[in-house]
Amino acid sequence: MYWNETEIKIRYSEVDRMNVVHNSKYFIFQEQAKHDFLEKNSLNKKFSDENGYFSPVIENRMIYLKPATFGEKIKVRIALFEIAAAEMKYISAIFNEKEEVLAVGFVSNCISNKKMRPLAIKKENEEEYLKFKKFEVKEKFENLNKKEIINFFKNEKFRI
Amino acid sequence: MYWNETEIKIRYSEVDRMNVVHNSKYFIFQEQAKHDFLEKNSLNKKFSDENGYFSPVIENRMIYLKPATFGEKIKVRIALFEIAAAEMKYISAIFNEKEEVLAVGFVSNCISNKKMRPLAIKKENEEEYLKFKKFEVKEKFENLNKKEIINFFKNEKFRI
Amino acid sequence: MYWNETEIKIRYSEVDRMNVVHNSKYFIFQEQAKHDFLEKNSLNKKFSDENGYFSPVIENRMIYLKPATFGEKIKVRIALFEIAAAEMKYISAIFNEKEEVLAVGFVSNCISNKKMRPLAIKKENEEEYLKFKKFEVKEKFENLNKKEIINFFKNEKFRI
Amino acid sequence: MYWNETEIKIRYSEVDRMNVVHNSKYFIFQEQAKHDFLEKNSLNKKFSDENGYFSPVIENRMIYLKPATFGEKIKVRIALFEIAAAEMKYISAIFNEKEEVLAVGFVSNCISNKKMRPLAIKKENEEEYLKFKKFEVKEKFENLNKKEIINFFKNEKFRI
Repeated sequence: MYWNETEIKIRYSEVDRMNVVHNSKYFIFQEQAKHDFLEKNSLNKKFSDENGYFSPVIENRMIYLKPATFGEKIKVRIALFEIAAAEMKYISAIFNEKEEVLAVGFVSNCISNKKMRPLAIKKENEEEYLKFKKFEVKEKFENLNKKEIINFFKNEKFRI
Repeated sequence: MYWNETEIKIRYSEVDRMNVVHNSKYFIFQEQAKHDFLEKNSLNKKFSDENGYFSPVIENRMIYLKPATFGEKIKVRIALFEIAAAEMKYISAIFNEKEEVLAVGFVSNCISNKKMRPLAIKKENEEEYLKFKKFEVKEKFENLNKKEIINFFKNEKFRI
Repeated sequence: MYWNETEIKIRYSEVDRMNVVHNSKYFIFQEQAKHDFLEKNSLNKKFSDENGYFSPVIENRMIYLKPATFGEKIKVRIALFEIAAAEMKYISAIFNEKEEVLAVGFVSNCISNKKMRPLAIKKENEEEYLKFKKFEVKEKFENLNKKEIINFFKNEKFRI
Repeated sequence: MYWNETEIKIRYSEVDRMNVVHNSKYFIFQEQAKHDFLEKNSLNKKFSDENGYFSPVIENRMIYLKPATFGEKIKVRIALFEIAAAEMKYISAIFNEKEEVLAVGFVSNCISNKKMRPLAIKKENEEEYLKFKKFEVKEKFENLNKKEIINFFKNEKFRI
């Protein structure tokens, strides 16, 4: 399936006293990858602050498999796997330079007005909704448990 | 069920440009609450760095329901809901001053050696394992979906 | 001289791989102390977002003397030492539980409009300016070098 | 004078509710630039954790001139301007894509043992000291005030 890839070099300030990237930082990386995906595909303008919209995160999840440390270069691959009525669901996978999976993450956001009230995406802007829809992959990850998610990545050939 | 409670006042630096607490910060709050629970119950010494152990996070999850902003006082309630062979599973719920649930989170960590190799907790230190075991609540959250989790909190009377 | 005091407990996520609080976090603590000072003295309302103002930081400085680590309780004492035409200058000192100085910091902010254009504070709101003016301490720190600053804290009796 | 340059793209999580990069993040950028300078010039190995050394920051300073926001690409230029007995002093300048100076910073670190006791750099490892010494620029910034620092950057032709 199609993935967008973002390279990140681990900063000193991102590593904790176990000498590994602090667990909260993976959500920063996942978010950066999401914004990078949106920007590269010109999906970052219509549902933006300037046009009266917010996109608050409504769910975040991260499964940690292998640590990374200061100075390492990682790759965050992200894909939009479902665009529901008022929710966009992404899956991400973080790799080190040896192509080992370090973490698998999920992030969902809704489109809302500036008072944080969620809006029906398609109704709000059908043209933009359809642009997002084109990036939706066929795979479903919603009901997979941790083991099944890890297995998925064993077999996935990343098309970037 | 029994919950440990930690009060936190939102810092300016924790708020993003939507004027709400940034999604990654909830994991910082959840972690602070976990450490507070461990410290208050004297569970923070045996499986510590000083004794040759690490406790890396192996899974993190957060469901966001309502935003909080700069200056607000929040309460993070956390409970140990399962201590498995090599994994400790916590659930947390974050409240504002009106007692509204802002977010529900999950965090699991393992006990590992300093090379990040997970260890069987009970075998490693049975006395300490049993001390943790006493805090394990009966409720199971593992297979609940988002709706069921939210429903749980509608009816929960927090014993702190 | 008069100081406002804020207690902070060091989080796990604030410590780096040298097992000490990361240098950038002291600016977060100093900022929290500044906001705490403003709130306690009802100085946080007039020059606020709601009233069309921003208060961007225009200078930050920190001299690090002794490290602190995870779980420690620190006290951040802060004082307004000069309110100039368009700038407010604060000094802070961070202490551990043994009353040792860990760091000495400085932060200045201006009052600006929402386009970040600095405004003359007194002209903008003289009543509010005079309220700030009352907190201004007589000591001047501007031209002191590092050694002189450290010496100042050797003799200072903190009135809180 | 000679500068090392590091490009950084501003993350969403680095922006505060004024929609500008939070003041504390500039120290993260400056630190990243310093590590990048050290790595590019193979100065990051001898005085490292692996060899029994720490390099704690002993002073940090930042003068903020113009804001940057989410998605912007900035360049952090850094130079070693003094290597003293037990201290290394760096100056940095942060630019936007229009080559406007956004901030000017200073960071000093010492070389210490793992108990944070500072060591005389030259005595500890003269060969490494001399490698650092080669990068020392002639300009002195120590006793310049804010205005003089800003003026310096008006005339500086950056050799990278």
